[in-house]
Amino acid sequence: MVGGGQLARMTHQAAIALGQSLRVLATSADEPAAQVSPDVVIGSHTDLEDLRRVAAGADALTFDHEHVPTELLEKLVAEGVNVAPPPQALVHAQDKLVMRRKLEALGAAVPRYVGLDSVEALDEVDDFARRIGGPLVVKAARGGYDGRGVQLARDLTQAREITRAYLADGVPVVLEEKVELRRELSALVARSPFGQGAAWPVVQTVQDDGICVLVIAPAPELPGDMAAAAQQLALRLAAELGVVGVLAVELFETIEGALLVNELAMRPHNSGHWTMDGARTSQFEQHLRAVLDYPLGDTDAIAPVTVMANVLGAAQLPEMTVDERLHHLYARMPDARVHLYGKAERPGRKVGHINFLGAAVADLPKLRERAELAAHWMSVGQWADGWDPHEERRQ
Amino acid sequence: MVGGGQLARMTHQAAIALGQSLRVLATSADEPAAQVSPDVVIGSHTDLEDLRRVAAGADALTFDHEHVPTELLEKLVAEGVNVAPPPQALVHAQDKLVMRRKLEALGAAVPRYVGLDSVEALDEVDDFARRIGGPLVVKAARGGYDGRGVQLARDLTQAREITRAYLADGVPVVLEEKVELRRELSALVARSPFGQGAAWPVVQTVQDDGICVLVIAPAPELPGDMAAAAQQLALRLAAELGVVGVLAVELFETIEGALLVNELAMRPHNSGHWTMDGARTSQFEQHLRAVLDYPLGDTDAIAPVTVMANVLGAAQLPEMTVDERLHHLYARMPDARVHLYGKAERPGRKVGHINFLGAAVADLPKLRERAELAAHWMSVGQWADGWDPHEERRQ
Repeated sequence: MVGGGQLARMTHQAAIALGQSLRVLATSADEPAAQVSPDVVIGSHTDLEDLRRVAAGADALTFDHEHVPTELLEKLVAEGVNVAPPPQALVHAQDKLVMRRKLEALGAAVPRYVGLDSVEALDEVDDFARRIGGPLVVKAARGGYDGRGVQLARDLTQAREITRAYLADGVPVVLEEKVELRRELSALVARSPFGQGAAWPVVQTVQDDGICVLVIAPAPELPGDMAAAAQQLALRLAAELGVVGVLAVELFETIEGALLVNELAMRPHNSGHWTMDGARTSQFEQHLRAVLDYPLGDTDAIAPVTVMANVLGAAQLPEMTVDERLHHLYARMPDARVHLYGKAERPGRKVGHINFLGAAVADLPKLRERAELAAHWMSVGQWADGWDPHEERRQ
Repeated sequence: MVGGGQLARMTHQAAIALGQSLRVLATSADEPAAQVSPDVVIGSHTDLEDLRRVAAGADALTFDHEHVPTELLEKLVAEGVNVAPPPQALVHAQDKLVMRRKLEALGAAVPRYVGLDSVEALDEVDDFARRIGGPLVVKAARGGYDGRGVQLARDLTQAREITRAYLADGVPVVLEEKVELRRELSALVARSPFGQGAAWPVVQTVQDDGICVLVIAPAPELPGDMAAAAQQLALRLAAELGVVGVLAVELFETIEGALLVNELAMRPHNSGHWTMDGARTSQFEQHLRAVLDYPLGDTDAIAPVTVMANVLGAAQLPEMTVDERLHHLYARMPDARVHLYGKAERPGRKVGHINFLGAAVADLPKLRERAELAAHWMSVGQWADGWDPHEERRQ
């Protein structure tokens, strides 16, 4: 697996059950996956030699991020490496403009947009703005994640400025309408080279400043036909694009009740972390099963409702160590399913997540409150509802 | 963790979620846990220097088997190592005679037995046999596992012979009545140094030739008061013996409906493998939480019934590789939760296990049949019910 982050870490965890051990290409020995796997190649995902080293003798080469240049992957494929997902599929998760154009060609609903490949096309910003008549979002076609590379323009002048800056750097731009949202959803599926597909229940994702903070599985009160349509769309896209592995289709549910595709990710995805405790087969095992062409696992939810909350690094590092905070969390919430990534805490950085399973859909408000409390506690070391940790510190 | 077997392998898997990585003392680099952990000390569990190396700098030293000599553990404790469970507790899982005498002193019901420490006491075999008037079981007090060191005597002469052989080797003997069983149960609990205890539902274990082959959780039709009594007994024993970590209390349910303690194990135990998919907190995470003095996790079952079947090495190695067999298993049973240990297959050797979750208690007969089918398939590479794998072999 290229990338030594938390996704690789949790993929190694899943690999163990399959009788496998994951080899990881990490940039340093202290990356989350490098801490827990015995088979680590230290190197760069933009260096062909390093990629060759991690692929040597492996059944398949897969990814915990989308940042490997397509031309390197094509070289590896030409050399006989089983790259999964293949580069011609992966490019749709790497380049938002390629993705938008392909989705349009496939008849999938997307926000209204215009693609700008060069500064010569800058006038189209004005044309598009007039046509839309509302707020605009400027997206760098490549290189962004967790909300980076995505900016809401205050006005037309700013939209032009941001767009010009990206284009001047040689980065194509997707300029699109700011969609009036009811909420965001994610349809997570997996597809094997054999062509088998499997969809988990569609979930609701809650973002804060472009970063996913909460996932509710399944998405509350989503009509059955809409859920089925989202699953079918994701399965169809996986097949049409030739995806191998997990595909996350991030969706906007508009206030009119339409579903528009926002983003694609071709790897285990934050919106699927709930599956580790909440589904029969986790996205990490499923990704491996797909990549290795095993028949896929049961995607049923285990509980009527599961809530996942991300633990983000706080603006100010808490006084208690993460280990002390974990003790207190377990003391208060014995049912919290905690997953830590072994990462140093930095503001806004995803350092772990927590799953809570509910016995009934009606438990959701309480479950969500507890998940938010737990994640906040693990983040800042303060209970938001007035609880006080013991004065005595553990030795 | 001392020992590089499957229990250490699955403990490492659980450690990852806690933000930890397990250091393992393995006898070779191809042991199950050594394959998947980056922190492996190659050495022997009977070598004090090797034990010191694995303990150096660790928060605690724990075990995946009971074979570390007590005197070495006591040395480590004297040197300041946090041995969990401590040697004075662990000895009750290492020595059946010490265990039986202690259980008797604590008022726990055990099979009728006599302890023999030396050949001088050999006449007591005859006295005991007369008193019991039925079949006798001869158990070596130390060194046995998975049914080894336990022999059913044909007659008094054979009982004397086996006993004499053990005593001549300096191994004390427990001679006991062969209990008329309804079935075998296991009460699994965990206890932290802080003194917190937590019990999972009591399970039924099914043995074949002394080896556990199947576990049903919870034990079917076990009256609530008996289940509660078994849990309370296990929690009490954990407290009285000063256990830190997981304690398995193996129980005989007699045809009269009494519960007798058969064996103790102070580590994650085969009868708890169902918790990996069937309980809120797995025994492996719980063992770590106990050993590291975290508050313990929720022990509730996730499903009304879970069946675990062990995959044992077949008498004859199947033609298909384990990987091919896994493909076929997944193709037929997408809900099978498979855990492989990365071990070479040898007759009767535990090489993996499979969990199945049922939606209702009434599903048990079908679930059990499927679990047995799945384990048999993974073991011998033949479906016992007439299914035929595809002729075409995977390339």
